[in-house]
Amino acid sequence: MTELKNDRFLRALLRQPVDRTPIWIMRQAGRYLPEYRATRAQAGDFMSLCKNTELACEVTLQPLDRFELDAAILFSDILTIPDAMGLGLYFAEGEGPKFHKPIRTEQDIEKLEVINTFSDLTYVTDAVATIRRELNGRVPLIGFSGSPWTLATYMIEGQSSRDFSRAKTMLYTQPQLLHQLLEKLALSVIDYLNAQIASGAQAVQIFDTWGGALSHSAYKEFSLAYMQKIVAGLNTESEGRQVPVILFTKGGGQWLSAMADTGCHCLGLDWSTDIGVARQLVGDRVALQGNMDPAVLRGSDDSITTAVTSILESFGSGSGHIFNLGHGITPDIDPAKVKLLVDTVQDQSAK
Amino acid sequence: MTELKNDRFLRALLRQPVDRTPIWIMRQAGRYLPEYRATRAQAGDFMSLCKNTELACEVTLQPLDRFELDAAILFSDILTIPDAMGLGLYFAEGEGPKFHKPIRTEQDIEKLEVINTFSDLTYVTDAVATIRRELNGRVPLIGFSGSPWTLATYMIEGQSSRDFSRAKTMLYTQPQLLHQLLEKLALSVIDYLNAQIASGAQAVQIFDTWGGALSHSAYKEFSLAYMQKIVAGLNTESEGRQVPVILFTKGGGQWLSAMADTGCHCLGLDWSTDIGVARQLVGDRVALQGNMDPAVLRGSDDSITTAVTSILESFGSGSGHIFNLGHGITPDIDPAKVKLLVDTVQDQSAK
Repeated sequence: MTELKNDRFLRALLRQPVDRTPIWIMRQAGRYLPEYRATRAQAGDFMSLCKNTELACEVTLQPLDRFELDAAILFSDILTIPDAMGLGLYFAEGEGPKFHKPIRTEQDIEKLEVINTFSDLTYVTDAVATIRRELNGRVPLIGFSGSPWTLATYMIEGQSSRDFSRAKTMLYTQPQLLHQLLEKLALSVIDYLNAQIASGAQAVQIFDTWGGALSHSAYKEFSLAYMQKIVAGLNTESEGRQVPVILFTKGGGQWLSAMADTGCHCLGLDWSTDIGVARQLVGDRVALQGNMDPAVLRGSDDSITTAVTSILESFGSGSGHIFNLGHGITPDIDPAKVKLLVDTVQDQSAK
Repeated sequence: MTELKNDRFLRALLRQPVDRTPIWIMRQAGRYLPEYRATRAQAGDFMSLCKNTELACEVTLQPLDRFELDAAILFSDILTIPDAMGLGLYFAEGEGPKFHKPIRTEQDIEKLEVINTFSDLTYVTDAVATIRRELNGRVPLIGFSGSPWTLATYMIEGQSSRDFSRAKTMLYTQPQLLHQLLEKLALSVIDYLNAQIASGAQAVQIFDTWGGALSHSAYKEFSLAYMQKIVAGLNTESEGRQVPVILFTKGGGQWLSAMADTGCHCLGLDWSTDIGVARQLVGDRVALQGNMDPAVLRGSDDSITTAVTSILESFGSGSGHIFNLGHGITPDIDPAKVKLLVDTVQDQSAK
């Protein structure tokens, strides 16, 4: 494998010294970029873009050509695993992800099988290998998966949800059935992330987008426990390097200490958390990633530089911080604002 | 005024000794009750029900006839103030609240006037006085308002929102304009809650439903600061008794200590917070209200009793706890489950 020219991101994840704070942006390959919209139009719908190795590689690299980012992230969707399990993922225009065959009965769960990534999701491992080759050591490549609880919510609801009424009804009436589903998903995520690592992913992130909808005790039992199982099941050494694991629970600011105990290397923070307070809480157990409100990018240049300064100062000196947004960048953002963000993080943190 | 027969709720709010944990339920007068649906059908739409003194009183009392609740809460909407300011509140079937004339320009904010409750919202003060008379000392009556930030989000978005893009764009491009709006709203809320207190409300709650969407620093500047101003402006003595103030920021679990410093008497908690952890955090500054996930009421009887036990045990002994849900009860709940909840809280906490 080619030598890595910029390992700032991996070093910060392991809390090793860095010359400045590394930055990447959740959903950095996305609709706010005109070149992404052009490639997507060429591919057709969103899943066709994910499944087209060449084009998925192309959009993964696009933001790196515009901005001095310190990591690339595989272009894919969090719902590839349930799709591979046979639920039939599709995207209704302007409505977010949906499943043709959501889980409706106990039998639906019983018949689900743990995936084998190298036979069921070759388009993902192909994309990882291709992107890694095309990156040619420029920056590290991040692989990712949805968390078991987050995948389960979509599988049970059949689509995005505001209050997760079906999923929570299962949780509070048939907890053992939900555990059965989560167990199959956790084993699938382990297989999936290990396959991404074997194909070239140099760090992995678990997106627990909906863990924050749970009560503190349900979070521990139905989301965190399965993420912990995943962390324990990952091959976190590859090519003679550590493969750091990032856990990100949106709305999980009150549970950071428990999350840090899973053995992961880094916690992603949304913008509700003061990163300095989080650092005191987790001590030297993990690095921290985040955590500017994506809405700041709709603001004045002044708002952006002020927010960056405030986050960098709150984290303080020393390594262990990866700058990011607290959630994915939205389609309405002007790329010039992203450039300002990236440049500001680099200039200010180098001081 | 008639003597109060059950002051358990007011005593717990002031952390005075009680024989058992008091309980009320956010949105306890609501669509999950068949008698509510009947009265609402009689009134026509939701706002007609709010504006009909007799019927608003009737639905306020309905849950007290079914369950041994320790407080009544005024039946009204959080958006009465913007409606009185001329924005034209209406409810599109199945879509939540909307405004005919949302705020779109600086001029829209400049021309807004601080309300005078006794002339602009007489249907609210009439309802408070009527309910108070009809309660006849049975339990205390809670008045309420939306928080300035929460009211502002609806006024700027024109309706409910997922990411508050317009409101946050104003926050990050024209913060002074947003402050101008929030200032007018804070003065209006002070007038509104003082009018409710003067009309007979014996405690008041400020619902900051959307404060949790803000970053930690924006929360303090754009939501908490105005709630603090409101707390300072309230007449918290009436009829020779303290009128306790409850602050409830949904998603505010990371900011409880700052909230406790406002001078309020009690913090409402959503279900993401462990109430025992919250109690350690706030010490003896405030009482705590909450915090069962409303989704537990969709669960088995066992789930309900387990959740109640866990919350009561986590709070621990001593006064200063008011049992409640972590958000409003949803329309799909079986009233029998609510009865189980109320009975369980009473039985277990009396031990």
